[in-house]
Amino acid sequence: MPQTSAIAQSPPSRCLVIGASGFIGRNLVASLAHRGIAVRALSRQGAALVDHPLVEWVKGDMLDEASLDAALEGVDACVQLATTTKPASSNADIVFDITSNLIANVRLLEKMVARGGIRFVFVSSGGTVYGDAKMVPVPESHSTEPKSSYGITKLAIEKYIAMFTRLHGLEARILRVSNPFGEYQPHSDGQGVIANFMWRALNNLPIEIIGDGSAVRDYLYVGDVCDAVHAALCYRGTKQLFNIGQGRGLSVLEIVQEIEEHLGSSVETQFLPGRAMDVRVSVLDCTLAHRELGWHPATSFSAGIERTAMWMRTLMKNADLEN
Amino acid sequence: MPQTSAIAQSPPSRCLVIGASGFIGRNLVASLAHRGIAVRALSRQGAALVDHPLVEWVKGDMLDEASLDAALEGVDACVQLATTTKPASSNADIVFDITSNLIANVRLLEKMVARGGIRFVFVSSGGTVYGDAKMVPVPESHSTEPKSSYGITKLAIEKYIAMFTRLHGLEARILRVSNPFGEYQPHSDGQGVIANFMWRALNNLPIEIIGDGSAVRDYLYVGDVCDAVHAALCYRGTKQLFNIGQGRGLSVLEIVQEIEEHLGSSVETQFLPGRAMDVRVSVLDCTLAHRELGWHPATSFSAGIERTAMWMRTLMKNADLEN
Repeated sequence: MPQTSAIAQSPPSRCLVIGASGFIGRNLVASLAHRGIAVRALSRQGAALVDHPLVEWVKGDMLDEASLDAALEGVDACVQLATTTKPASSNADIVFDITSNLIANVRLLEKMVARGGIRFVFVSSGGTVYGDAKMVPVPESHSTEPKSSYGITKLAIEKYIAMFTRLHGLEARILRVSNPFGEYQPHSDGQGVIANFMWRALNNLPIEIIGDGSAVRDYLYVGDVCDAVHAALCYRGTKQLFNIGQGRGLSVLEIVQEIEEHLGSSVETQFLPGRAMDVRVSVLDCTLAHRELGWHPATSFSAGIERTAMWMRTLMKNADLEN
Repeated sequence: MPQTSAIAQSPPSRCLVIGASGFIGRNLVASLAHRGIAVRALSRQGAALVDHPLVEWVKGDMLDEASLDAALEGVDACVQLATTTKPASSNADIVFDITSNLIANVRLLEKMVARGGIRFVFVSSGGTVYGDAKMVPVPESHSTEPKSSYGITKLAIEKYIAMFTRLHGLEARILRVSNPFGEYQPHSDGQGVIANFMWRALNNLPIEIIGDGSAVRDYLYVGDVCDAVHAALCYRGTKQLFNIGQGRGLSVLEIVQEIEEHLGSSVETQFLPGRAMDVRVSVLDCTLAHRELGWHPATSFSAGIERTAMWMRTLMKNADLEN
C-alpha cells in the first residue's frame, strides 16, 4: 500500500487503461479494480484477461481514432501504457516508431484536452530517456540523450504533455519507470531479462547474456509500479515528472546469482555480443517520488523474484496439465 | 570573416542547402558561393534566386524521397534550413508538424548515413527549444521545455542527430540560432519582427506590437548566421551543439526606438494581445561557439538595422519602378 501523500486528492472513479493486455497493464487493471476504481481496459485483443466486476474489457486500438473516442467516453482518468516498439528494435523503423507512438499519443492528448476533466498518467521509460548516465543514481534533471528511437519518442511525448499542461491545463503526470519485472512479463520478447532468465532456468536451458553481464539496471517489482501509478492518479501537487524505480542497481550477473540462490542450484550461462543502443548503467534517483507522491517501493528484489518464480511455476504446471 | 578555429578542417567542396529559397537560405547560398564552395540550392520553387557560377538551383521537396536522393548525389556537405511550420502556428496542426518536419528530417539523416562522407549542419531554434529561461543568458545545458510543437520537433530532430552520430558516425553540428534578421527576411509572414516593423515604418503604417513590448529577444544579423554555418561546416572538434546569437537581449520597444533613431522620426505603435506560446526572454550564451568554432558576431545591431533598411528601400524603389 502506498503511503498517503500530503497533497493527495480522491482517486478517480472510472479509469481508462490503454495497453491493458500488456505486462504492466494486466497488473494495473487488477490493482486499480482491487482498490475500488472502475476500469475500462483497452487492448487490441479485447480478451478479458482480468475477471473482476469493476473491469470492462474493450477491444480497440489507440491508433484508430474512433475506438479512442469511444474509450474516452465517461472516464475521469487515463493511464497510457501502450507502445508499438521496443528499445532494441525501434531504430530499425524510426518512421513507424514516430507514427505509431508519437503521433498516436499527441492525438490522445488533443482528445483529452477537448473533453476536459480527465487526469492523465503517462508511463515513460526511465531506462532509455537519459542515455548514458553522467551520475548514479540519475535524477529527473539529468540530461536526456536517448540511444534509441524508443527513448526519443518517449521524450517527445513527455514534451508534448508538458506543453499541453501549460497551454491547456491538462492534469498529467509522467512516470519514468525503471526496469519492471514480475507476474505476466513475457519471457520470450527480448525485453524482460528476469522473466527470460527465470524461464530458462526453470526449464533447464542455458541463460543467454547479452554483453559481458556487467550492465546495471534498476529492477522494480511490477506491484510497486502499480502503486506508483495509483499515487500519481491521486497526486495534486505541482510536480509533473517522476522517476519510479528501486533506486538500487543490479548487474546482469547479480541477477543470475539471485536466481541461483532462489533455485538452490547453479545455472548454465552463455554470452552474446553487446548492443550499441544499450546503456551501461541505469539507476534512478526516486527522491522526488518519495517526497511528493508518498510512494516507496514495498517489495524487495528477492521477494519479487520469489513471486515471479511462483507465478511462472503455476503457468508451467497449467501448461503441463493442458498437454 | 570568422576567426579560424584551432581545430578547423578544410571547407567542403560541394554543399547541398535545403530550404535555399528562404530568408537564411538565400543569404547562405550567396555566402558559401562567395567563399568558393559549390552549392546545390534545393527549393520547392526552383527559381534561381542567387546568380553565381558556383550555384546550381534545383527544384525539389525534401518531403519527396526521390528529389532528396537526387539532391544528395555527389555532395560532401548538407545544411538543412527547411521547415514547414512556424512557432506561432505549429500547435494548430501538430500531426502535420511531426510528419512534415520530424519524419522528413529522420529520412534525411538515414539517407546521409547510408551514403556516408556528408558533413551535416542542422539549423535549430535557439528561441523555442529552451522554453522559459531559468537563467539569462541561456547556455546549451539549460533545460528544454518548448512551448510550441515547432520547438518540440526541432528538439526531437536534435536527439535523432545525436543518436545517428553515436550509432552511425554521422558528422553533424547543430546550431541553435537566435532571432535572425537582415536582407531577404519577409516582412509579412508573422515571424520577422524587425523586417515587419521596418517595412511598416518605411511605409508610414503603425507598428503592431504583440503583447506589451517587453518581450526580449537575441537578434542576430543574418550575415553572422552564415558565418556560423560556415564555421560549423569546417569544425572538427568533439562538440556538436552550439548556441548562435548576439548574446545580448533587446526588448520589442527597444527595437522600435532603434528604428526611430535610424529614421530620425517617431513611429506610431499599436498593441495587440500576447500569445501563450511566446517566451518572455530569450538570450543565448554563445561562449561555446566563440571558443570551439572561433565564431563571433561581426555586425552590431545598428549596423544590421542599417543594412536591412538599405535593402528594403531598394526593394521598395524597384517595386515603384515596376508599377
